[in-house]
Amino acid sequence: MILKTLFTALLSCNLFFFSSVSFAEEPIKPIKAAVPKDKGMVELGKMLFFDPRLSKSGFISCNSCHNLSMGGTDNIKTSIGHKWQQGPINAPTVLNSSMNLAQFWDGRAKGLKEQAGGPIANPGEMAFTHKLAVDVLHSIPQYRGRFKQVFGAENISIDMVTDAIAAFEETLVTPDSRFDKWLKGDKEAIDQAELEGYKLFKESGCASCHHGTAVGGASFQKLGVLAPYKTTSKAEGRKEVTGKNTDRFVFKVPTLRNIELTYPYFHDGAVATLEEAVNKMGQLQLGIDFSTEENAKIVAFLKTLTGKQPDFKLPALPPSVNETPRPVPFD
Amino acid sequence: MILKTLFTALLSCNLFFFSSVSFAEEPIKPIKAAVPKDKGMVELGKMLFFDPRLSKSGFISCNSCHNLSMGGTDNIKTSIGHKWQQGPINAPTVLNSSMNLAQFWDGRAKGLKEQAGGPIANPGEMAFTHKLAVDVLHSIPQYRGRFKQVFGAENISIDMVTDAIAAFEETLVTPDSRFDKWLKGDKEAIDQAELEGYKLFKESGCASCHHGTAVGGASFQKLGVLAPYKTTSKAEGRKEVTGKNTDRFVFKVPTLRNIELTYPYFHDGAVATLEEAVNKMGQLQLGIDFSTEENAKIVAFLKTLTGKQPDFKLPALPPSVNETPRPVPFD
Repeated sequence: MILKTLFTALLSCNLFFFSSVSFAEEPIKPIKAAVPKDKGMVELGKMLFFDPRLSKSGFISCNSCHNLSMGGTDNIKTSIGHKWQQGPINAPTVLNSSMNLAQFWDGRAKGLKEQAGGPIANPGEMAFTHKLAVDVLHSIPQYRGRFKQVFGAENISIDMVTDAIAAFEETLVTPDSRFDKWLKGDKEAIDQAELEGYKLFKESGCASCHHGTAVGGASFQKLGVLAPYKTTSKAEGRKEVTGKNTDRFVFKVPTLRNIELTYPYFHDGAVATLEEAVNKMGQLQLGIDFSTEENAKIVAFLKTLTGKQPDFKLPALPPSVNETPRPVPFD
Repeated sequence: MILKTLFTALLSCNLFFFSSVSFAEEPIKPIKAAVPKDKGMVELGKMLFFDPRLSKSGFISCNSCHNLSMGGTDNIKTSIGHKWQQGPINAPTVLNSSMNLAQFWDGRAKGLKEQAGGPIANPGEMAFTHKLAVDVLHSIPQYRGRFKQVFGAENISIDMVTDAIAAFEETLVTPDSRFDKWLKGDKEAIDQAELEGYKLFKESGCASCHHGTAVGGASFQKLGVLAPYKTTSKAEGRKEVTGKNTDRFVFKVPTLRNIELTYPYFHDGAVATLEEAVNKMGQLQLGIDFSTEENAKIVAFLKTLTGKQPDFKLPALPPSVNETPRPVPFD
C-alpha cells in the first residue's frame, strides 16, 4: 500500500513535470478564467455596455457592434453607426481584448478604459457627447445609486462610466477552448488534423505574430510584408497615430481566439472565410502558398480556439425618469 | 391540540375564502408565471429573437426594437428600421403580449406567430424576406440541428421560425409585481397613495378598458372618445384592417403592465411621461380633468404594475459558415 501510494505520487509528479514542460514550450498559453476585482463595478459596467441611452439615438449600445451573442463583433464588414453611417473599419472583438497591448486596430487607445469613451463621442458611431451621456445616467435614480455604491461619489463622471465598462470587459475572456484543454494535457481534446494544423501554424511562421494567451494582440505589424495588401479601405493603421510613413498599413495583430465567430476578417472586413484569410496571410506575410490540404488543417486548428462564450444574464436596465433627456434618433 | 389544529384549519379556510372573494372582485388579475410547453423550442426561439441575421443588414434583431433589457420596447417614439428608416408607430412591448386579443396596434395579426413574421419581411423594419431568412438559418449546421431536434424535420420553414419565436415570447410574462402581491393578499405590498391611485383608476373608468391580467390588450377602442386626438402620425388603427371609417383611430388597448418601463406612450409615442399620459387619457377618453394630486396617485399606482423582468442568460448564437448568405447592410 505504501509502495503503491509512493508510486502514484511519483507518477503524478512526473506527469505534471512533463505536462508543465511541454506547456511552457508552446507559443500559445491557455486563457485563465476571469476573477472580477469588483463585482458591483462589473455589474454596472455590464448594464452600461447594454444601454443604448449612451448614444444620441437611444438605439446603439456597445453591444450593437460588439455583440456578445456573436463573438463580441457585429459580423459585418464595417459597422453601422448613427443614422446608418458606414464605419471605416471592421469592429474588433471585445472578447479577450484586455490582453491587447493597445485598443483599436491602430492602437490609438492605451487600454479598455480609454477605448470605451471613443465610440460614445464618435459622430459616426454613437454620436453622443460624454457630457450628455453622463447627464442621461445622472438623471436616473437607480444609476445614481449604483454609481454611488461602486465609486462612493454623488456625481457620475465619464471616468466612472469608462472604468465600469472596462471592468466588465475585463471579464469577457473565453477559457476552456478545445485547444486550451489540449495545452493543459488533454490529448483527446483536438484531433489529428487539428494537431497537424497547429504544427503547420507554428512551422510556417504564423505564431511569430499570433502567439501568447490571446494568439495575437501583442504587437503591431505591417499588413503586406511580401506583397502589398489591396483594399478600398482608407484606414492606414499606426500611421494615423504616429504620423510616420513607415507605419502605413501597420496594424495591431488581431487575436485569433474565437476566430470562427468573428468573421469577416482583416481590418477592412474584406475577407469572408477563414480559408481565404489563411491563404492571404500566407501569401502576404510569409510568402507561402498553402496547399488546400494544409489550409484545411490550419483552419481546423483555428476552430479549436473557440472558448467559453460570455455566460451571464441579460441585464435589466433602470427606466428613464421624467427628467431624463430623451434620445434624438431622427433630427 | 386537536382544537388548535381545527382552529388553524378553519382560519386558513376563512382567509382563503376572503382573499379569494376580494381577488375575484378586482378587475385586474395577477400574472401567473410562464410554464413553457417545449423548452427546446423556447430556447431556439430565444436565439432567433436575438439573431440579427433575420434582417437584411445583419444588424437588426427582434430584440433591437423589443429590447428585453428595456421593458420589451425601444423607448423611442417610433422605431428605427433598415437604413435608419423612421417607423410609422411606437413599438408595443413584447412583454405579456401573449395575453393580447391580437397583435400590432391595429390588431392585424391574430397571434404572436403571425406577428413574428411581419417585421422580418417589412421593408421598413428588418427588410428581409422569409425565404432569405430561412436560407440563412438553413445554412448553419447548429441551427439545422436544433430545428431538427425541436420540429423533427430536415428542412427549416418560416412556420417553424415563427412558431419558435412565438413560443419564446409566450414565456415573456412579468409576474410578482407589487400590485400582484397586493392582489394576492400582501396588503403591505403597496402604500396608501398607490392604493388610492388604484381606487381612482377604477372609479374614474380607466379599468373599463384597462382590465384583466394584462391591464389592457383585451379590446379595441377609439382613441379620442370625448375629444379628438391630435397627432402628426398617419396611423389610422383598425380602419387599415377593416376598411371601415368608423374604425379610424380605433386601436388595441395597450397593456399597462410595466408601463413605467415602456415610455414614450400612445401609438405615436408622442407622450413622454406617465403624468401626461394619465391626463390625456382622462380628457380624451373619460372627460375628466384629474387634479395634480389625483394624477400623482394614479401614476403611483401604475408604477406598482412593474413585474419581474425577463430573467435568462444571453444566448450564444451559432456562427455562420462559408455557405451562409452574408448580410447586405449598405447596398
